[in-house]
Amino acid sequence: MKVIKFGGSSLASAEQLKKVLDIVTSDPERRFVIVSAPGKRHSEDTKVTDALIKYYKNYVAGNDVTASQKWIIDRYQAIADELGLSPAIMTKISTAIKQLATLPIEDNAFLYDTFLAAGEDNNAKLVAEYFRKNGLSSRYMHPKEAGIIVSSEPSNARILPSSYDKLEALQELDEVIVIPGFFGVTVDGNVCTFSRGGSDISGSIVAAGVKADLYENFTDVDGIFAAHPGVVHKPHTIKELTYREMRELAYAGFSVLHDEALIPAYRGKIPLVIKNTNNPNHPGTRITLKNTSNNAPVIGIAADDNFASINMSKYLMNREVGFGRKVLQILEELNIRWEHMPTGIDDMSIIVRERELTPIKEQEITTYLTRELGVDEVDIEHGLSIIMIVGEDMKNHIGVTATATKALSEKHINLEMISQGSSEVSVMFVTQTEHEKQAVRALYKAFFQPEED
Amino acid sequence: MKVIKFGGSSLASAEQLKKVLDIVTSDPERRFVIVSAPGKRHSEDTKVTDALIKYYKNYVAGNDVTASQKWIIDRYQAIADELGLSPAIMTKISTAIKQLATLPIEDNAFLYDTFLAAGEDNNAKLVAEYFRKNGLSSRYMHPKEAGIIVSSEPSNARILPSSYDKLEALQELDEVIVIPGFFGVTVDGNVCTFSRGGSDISGSIVAAGVKADLYENFTDVDGIFAAHPGVVHKPHTIKELTYREMRELAYAGFSVLHDEALIPAYRGKIPLVIKNTNNPNHPGTRITLKNTSNNAPVIGIAADDNFASINMSKYLMNREVGFGRKVLQILEELNIRWEHMPTGIDDMSIIVRERELTPIKEQEITTYLTRELGVDEVDIEHGLSIIMIVGEDMKNHIGVTATATKALSEKHINLEMISQGSSEVSVMFVTQTEHEKQAVRALYKAFFQPEED
Repeated sequence: MKVIKFGGSSLASAEQLKKVLDIVTSDPERRFVIVSAPGKRHSEDTKVTDALIKYYKNYVAGNDVTASQKWIIDRYQAIADELGLSPAIMTKISTAIKQLATLPIEDNAFLYDTFLAAGEDNNAKLVAEYFRKNGLSSRYMHPKEAGIIVSSEPSNARILPSSYDKLEALQELDEVIVIPGFFGVTVDGNVCTFSRGGSDISGSIVAAGVKADLYENFTDVDGIFAAHPGVVHKPHTIKELTYREMRELAYAGFSVLHDEALIPAYRGKIPLVIKNTNNPNHPGTRITLKNTSNNAPVIGIAADDNFASINMSKYLMNREVGFGRKVLQILEELNIRWEHMPTGIDDMSIIVRERELTPIKEQEITTYLTRELGVDEVDIEHGLSIIMIVGEDMKNHIGVTATATKALSEKHINLEMISQGSSEVSVMFVTQTEHEKQAVRALYKAFFQPEED
Repeated sequence: MKVIKFGGSSLASAEQLKKVLDIVTSDPERRFVIVSAPGKRHSEDTKVTDALIKYYKNYVAGNDVTASQKWIIDRYQAIADELGLSPAIMTKISTAIKQLATLPIEDNAFLYDTFLAAGEDNNAKLVAEYFRKNGLSSRYMHPKEAGIIVSSEPSNARILPSSYDKLEALQELDEVIVIPGFFGVTVDGNVCTFSRGGSDISGSIVAAGVKADLYENFTDVDGIFAAHPGVVHKPHTIKELTYREMRELAYAGFSVLHDEALIPAYRGKIPLVIKNTNNPNHPGTRITLKNTSNNAPVIGIAADDNFASINMSKYLMNREVGFGRKVLQILEELNIRWEHMPTGIDDMSIIVRERELTPIKEQEITTYLTRELGVDEVDIEHGLSIIMIVGEDMKNHIGVTATATKALSEKHINLEMISQGSSEVSVMFVTQTEHEKQAVRALYKAFFQPEED
């Protein structure tokens, strides 16, 4: 049994929905369909979700909402017309959209979430109706009925563990179940949206709940590229990678799926495949729990900028018990989240994302470290990038770092820091951002096109 | 003005003392001489300090101490006879040694320190007498008179800052001052020895106190080798290195001077030279505050074994605020000192020296990390070595890590971890101890004998 999730661009138009139907019907294992709200049809288009935000703002401001409602209803209507759906479904959708503007504004912490969730919710109704019209035994299911029960944290819902038992019962159903993504229902029956990852997290939750054999995530790309296509010319698509590798790539700039969205599937040990609605025969990228095949040592190269490094040195730092802990405590007190902490003998660096720092915080750090910890020198370096070569099979290949550092030194790229941990899932290089792209290209060439030298 | 310190082997016999005299008289700048107790004359010999420990044990146990006293006095007598010193000096020394066995045993926290310090103290008297007999205007000076005032921590004395003012006044003297090393005097007048570094620290303190131009530390080696001579065949002697480089080398197994002993000289900005009493024309190794000349990128390769790594992984670890700090807090509570903390995205390793762990502590760490921090996996890896390539000029040379990792991968040495911090004073490699020597040889060859390839 498979859980299949379609993103907004896969559901933006009738043409796209026809592809979705073909995909769903081509495999009887595809039994749970999670849908996003209709996305953009072209780059200038408006997403339904964004139109709903505008509608919400007008409503709470006491403005006339007729135009807002009309735009949204028309958007669904255009799809329904092209698909030749019966007027009954549009009546339902139209009523639901208009009803939003009857909900109480005062003391309603979930109003914003309810507006937003309507994008997915009504799209699920429309998709189920389209499936049925085309002979597929299918039905729409609200997250409340499905059992997606979440914490009462508006716009920041977390799945409650009890959901999984209820979801498991859905295995018994023999229709194709269409569930709107992006939200769940609180114990009190309020609609509450997930903070990040949108419908991806709903798919991940359902896949874990029904103990799917596979979670298929359909997007508008063939899969995950081994490097950013804006940096490397036509990078190849990764055939298979592990959740761990995915996390490492996601950390340094890869954003096909939000990694938090993957937790339920990861914990439920469900493999995932990322595929392209517009090119469904492409095998896509499979994300597995364990490294199965004999892979190349490096499966991808990721890079991200906007890092800074707080560098400090103190003679005999290494002898001071508790020094590192005290530094981290100070950062915690200043509410600064850190990323890495490479240590020398008498020096230590703390790598943070630039957004964690402000000129005032920098001043505070310097003062604290100097006065309270007596460091000899502190300096804060800006404009750094992290570049990571990722691959779980690295540990079985000697010389990966040698290949990487050789490629970088041949391009005269100075490495500010290097870190390879015991897990050997990745090697991290820190360079100045001005060298980032060149470094990624050099590494891509070294690991993926060595024969072209 | 120079402060010059001689180690035990430089003072073990009349023959050695003649070399010492030649060294001191050959440069009128050599005005302060710090002496150790007489060391071993040959590998089977007993150090005076060890004989004093035996004497102390017999005395506090209520045993007859005549034989212990005789051995020590005879040892000084043999040197005095060969040097043709007047009987008066041996009367002083003999009286001082015997007087130790009249000190109160009860409520005397400084008794052990006083016994031990007698080795250096009486040697300083003998050396000063020998210098005088050979026409050098010289005198013995007790640390109390010199102003080496220390904290009242038996066997663990720390210099008090007030000492430096008093020491500065010694600049005015125009004799060669011979001061026993290894101990100071408390405010209450008790003899109290330094914990580590013996006479090296006394020399370092005096050098800082009199604001010497140079602190000369005479030992029985030509200087600091670029790698351990037991591993690399005839490694070359380092001409010059910085205090920082020295610290990095000392960390990973280089033990010419105890690095804590260097703090006063370092803080006083006094350069240091390590020289050989038996080969005084060799320039030795100079330790400077700043990297002055255009050095090679790597000045030395150090290695040390008996490290372990506590490896942990947790999905989305990276997103948890305070995770690293909590891990360090747990280690602090378990009284485990850590060395390095390389972090991946969802994994972290803590490198510790083996002596910090016991099977019980390992169990406690595992339990804590699993229960309190919810890590997915913990494992503790033993039998690791740290290998460091050290050189402050590394930052001006691109490709140092490439050269190093290439050399190691050619020897099929797998690197468990790699760390190069922002200071770029060193690059640290962690390997299994079975590969340590081979790794050091490969790195030595790569950086010091590349032409021989």
